[in-house]
Amino acid sequence: MYRTNTCGELTISNVGQEVTLCGWLQRSRDLGGMTFIDLRDRYGITQLAFNMETNPALCEQARRLGREYVIQVEGIVIERSSKNNKIPTGEIEIEVRSLTVLNEAKTPPFTIEDNSDGGDDLRMKYRYLDIRRNPVRRNLELRHRMAMLVRNYLNSQQFLEIETPMLIKSTPEGARDFVVPSRMNPGEFYALPQSPQQYKQLLMVAGMDRYFQIVRCFRDEDLRADRQPEFTQIDCEMSFVEQEDVLNMFEGMTKHLFKEVKGLQFDHFPRMTWHEAMRRYGSDKPDIRFGMEFVELNDVVKGKGFGLFDGAELVVGICVKGCAEYTRKQLDALTDFVKRPQVGAGSMVYVKYNADGSFKSSVDKFYTQDDQRAIADRFQAQPGDLMLILCGPAMKTRGQLCALRLEMGGQLGLRNPDVYAPLWVIDFPLLEWDDETQRFYAMHHPFTAPKPEDEALMDQPERWGDIRANAYDIVINGVEVGGGSVRIHDRTLQNKMFHTLGFSDEQAAAQFGFLMDAFTYGAPPHAGLAFGFDRLCSLFGGVDTIRDFIAFPKNNSGRDVMSGSPSPISKEQLEELQIDVKLK
Amino acid sequence: MYRTNTCGELTISNVGQEVTLCGWLQRSRDLGGMTFIDLRDRYGITQLAFNMETNPALCEQARRLGREYVIQVEGIVIERSSKNNKIPTGEIEIEVRSLTVLNEAKTPPFTIEDNSDGGDDLRMKYRYLDIRRNPVRRNLELRHRMAMLVRNYLNSQQFLEIETPMLIKSTPEGARDFVVPSRMNPGEFYALPQSPQQYKQLLMVAGMDRYFQIVRCFRDEDLRADRQPEFTQIDCEMSFVEQEDVLNMFEGMTKHLFKEVKGLQFDHFPRMTWHEAMRRYGSDKPDIRFGMEFVELNDVVKGKGFGLFDGAELVVGICVKGCAEYTRKQLDALTDFVKRPQVGAGSMVYVKYNADGSFKSSVDKFYTQDDQRAIADRFQAQPGDLMLILCGPAMKTRGQLCALRLEMGGQLGLRNPDVYAPLWVIDFPLLEWDDETQRFYAMHHPFTAPKPEDEALMDQPERWGDIRANAYDIVINGVEVGGGSVRIHDRTLQNKMFHTLGFSDEQAAAQFGFLMDAFTYGAPPHAGLAFGFDRLCSLFGGVDTIRDFIAFPKNNSGRDVMSGSPSPISKEQLEELQIDVKLK
Repeated sequence: MYRTNTCGELTISNVGQEVTLCGWLQRSRDLGGMTFIDLRDRYGITQLAFNMETNPALCEQARRLGREYVIQVEGIVIERSSKNNKIPTGEIEIEVRSLTVLNEAKTPPFTIEDNSDGGDDLRMKYRYLDIRRNPVRRNLELRHRMAMLVRNYLNSQQFLEIETPMLIKSTPEGARDFVVPSRMNPGEFYALPQSPQQYKQLLMVAGMDRYFQIVRCFRDEDLRADRQPEFTQIDCEMSFVEQEDVLNMFEGMTKHLFKEVKGLQFDHFPRMTWHEAMRRYGSDKPDIRFGMEFVELNDVVKGKGFGLFDGAELVVGICVKGCAEYTRKQLDALTDFVKRPQVGAGSMVYVKYNADGSFKSSVDKFYTQDDQRAIADRFQAQPGDLMLILCGPAMKTRGQLCALRLEMGGQLGLRNPDVYAPLWVIDFPLLEWDDETQRFYAMHHPFTAPKPEDEALMDQPERWGDIRANAYDIVINGVEVGGGSVRIHDRTLQNKMFHTLGFSDEQAAAQFGFLMDAFTYGAPPHAGLAFGFDRLCSLFGGVDTIRDFIAFPKNNSGRDVMSGSPSPISKEQLEELQIDVKLK
Repeated sequence: MYRTNTCGELTISNVGQEVTLCGWLQRSRDLGGMTFIDLRDRYGITQLAFNMETNPALCEQARRLGREYVIQVEGIVIERSSKNNKIPTGEIEIEVRSLTVLNEAKTPPFTIEDNSDGGDDLRMKYRYLDIRRNPVRRNLELRHRMAMLVRNYLNSQQFLEIETPMLIKSTPEGARDFVVPSRMNPGEFYALPQSPQQYKQLLMVAGMDRYFQIVRCFRDEDLRADRQPEFTQIDCEMSFVEQEDVLNMFEGMTKHLFKEVKGLQFDHFPRMTWHEAMRRYGSDKPDIRFGMEFVELNDVVKGKGFGLFDGAELVVGICVKGCAEYTRKQLDALTDFVKRPQVGAGSMVYVKYNADGSFKSSVDKFYTQDDQRAIADRFQAQPGDLMLILCGPAMKTRGQLCALRLEMGGQLGLRNPDVYAPLWVIDFPLLEWDDETQRFYAMHHPFTAPKPEDEALMDQPERWGDIRANAYDIVINGVEVGGGSVRIHDRTLQNKMFHTLGFSDEQAAAQFGFLMDAFTYGAPPHAGLAFGFDRLCSLFGGVDTIRDFIAFPKNNSGRDVMSGSPSPISKEQLEELQIDVKLK
């Protein structure tokens, strides 16, 4: 062993001990008579002291060391004269007796500090240096800890972690698969799993009763800022359970994480139907850390001669507390915000409830003071409040107002990352209409069960959009961290579902045949859920981007700029695989 | 919840309770007045009793149920009249009050019993039914348990589990990569990792200090019976350690597994150099559950006019205790065994040390009784022993004798799967000569460090074969369950190594450039090891094939016969990826 201790553990109780430490040179301070070095490893920082008077040669040697040099020192733990109470080792330092350079280091391209001077691209290229920084290291430590907590919790609940294959069969339904050419079976391809969905259902058929896996999944999608081509799920499935049992189990697990990681206790998580969430927040993943709920105004505002409102399917707004003083400029900025293509509203109406009880709005021409009071009453507004109103087709407008609500929540500091507001969203629609392809798609996936009381609607195509599923999402602070459903375990119902999705029997058999076969040999009732583990970690870490919680992430083009992957492969490799590159 | 209890937990202390159970119908016995059903779930079997007198309708219903039906029953726990002390629930049964069929089942294509009537292929096709069988279920449970034990142990030793990417850069060195075409970067490919080797070394450069990961790895090799295209490693790396520290750490982990899983305690694991292992057992993974060590005979047997021995580089044999009575037929069978192409010996010589003190050999013509006594003395043989001798080129002959030794060990019952004999094999050669390509290859990989005392030999190409590496394998019962090495952390030494392997600077930079770059920014001394997790599980499970410990394995053509993967993909998918299938 190169060391007797780490850089994070020596305290005043170790004074007098002879120790050997290893680490990286974080910084060095030359004070003439003394040179001090902060030695860093994963566990902390320990100060090294070199004395020019008592050991000038060693002190000279120390002064020549550059940042990030890897060194080993032997010395005695002594009490510091000027203590640093910000770090656990701040009361001591090492009076160094000997120094060995284990490896030199070029000057890093950015500073290895909590706030680095390196830009995103540079830090990605040198990710191994970025990870040396405390914030990144802490993220990876948190991720490790959360994985341990999850595994031990689920183990205590009799779940078995079972590894499912990574080289599986490609199924065109859903997102795009990554595929892997098979050399041993020329012309054929494996797919990388988008999730172990079918395998976990097979494990239920196999009687494994409670399955989980923290597992890598793959999706060949055009990447947004917070998407990665490979990501990690906590994937779970249970047999002989109903929706209620799944919600309780994973609410228990989530509470356990909150308690252990954040020291937070929750009574129980509120639940909201999908329809209610859409109506009150315009989103199936509402951020309920703050109110500012939607208020519908059709009956209050229509018929006053304001064409925009009169012609709209839905007029809906939010009441922003205490913002009646917003300036023209601020209001214009909000209008610009909702008009951005990402939000897509045509206009925004405001009504100010002034402190003196009067009203001022962008539609004073159409609405009298009394009309505006009626609007304010509907909002239960107080003097000093600002009402912001959008209108248009119902679902679209709700989505736009949702964006505005989140923007206002952000502006007013109501989205504190240290506050956590979990929520179950339940009763999702089973099917989703797609205008482009003119057919229904499964909102979750084709194995999701309808609510028993809605099953009869499957025989009425005109009511398909109304069928509710036994499907649920767990949402924390407006982020969907997990979701799942009760599965169809009955072959007849499954066939009906495939029919609804426009699959011929042949298509269904080709894609899901082995699963359907399995279901004829005694499938138990089962249900499950999967958490997005990267996202869960980022949420617990109080950071927005999942990339910060992945050791070696890819950029938005799916590239790892550090290793230079993907890259061309050799002619020989292509020939062995019996494939050709054919660039358009 | 569909049930109040599992099928494995009710005992005499529950008598009188009203319970609801769910499970699969294992078997049913119609005794006229009574019908009994064994109800099975993952946790056990509980007997259900139906009484024709008290509830004829229910009893009739029960009689109509087929094997593997999924049912739910409500009833009262009662004491059994005839108890079964082989199962935990054997003192009770359920007097059933009501019965619900949750799902019907077609008759399974093979019996769901410990010893099934299904052949391998059939059981693979219906793997989800195979897993219902106790032996397979227990294997997966053991695997889960071992993964939990490993993770908790390494966590307690301050290791962090860090996920490394699955979509990485292809490196032609080593075994063949599986590749993944990148749609977003047409003409370019990712590779699936053969191991996270480079990433774990980067994590050491990143200061993570102690890393592990239970991780899927991929190798596109022609498959042997005990190989899978995807397999799982316990992958580990540590900084600021020497070989001794790594051996101690993972010996500790392995002992922990032995203690927890098998109730076995070990003092410490013996160590043997690679050269010693080859000399004494003809293998770098000797099975030391039994002796029968190699005895070299050149000086005892040469010069007696037996041309085969006289012309051989090495004459070497084993002494098989108490087998002097082997018949001509048995000895012929052994000769046939060593002459099989898989073993490849030209002949086998035997010397019997008869109980009466006389000798009988297949080379009596050349060796007098005194000569044979000298041979026997060298073997330290006793009357009643049988000596088996092979000759030829040294390394080849050792390999052949190793096969014979294992065969004899097997025949004599010396390879008891309940006995465990772990061993460290150390000081592997750094380089291995390949006759075909006429160059040296790294025996482990290009990052393995030579022993410091052998470093000077790197400047003497004629001595390259003699360089020993700081590389080690952990071997249990003749199975290599893990291996690793101290890594090169010095850029100059690494360049020298690449030179030795015949890489130009450009080739080295193209393949390993980012790792080499990383090493210039302060790489700590580091070392690591990886266990083959599938193999480790099979060893602890007392079974030879890793396939039995993988939920959904592939066959020897890399096919999953259950799902029918790999399979052709659509024209559209190929076009999007800008590749063409071009069958030869």
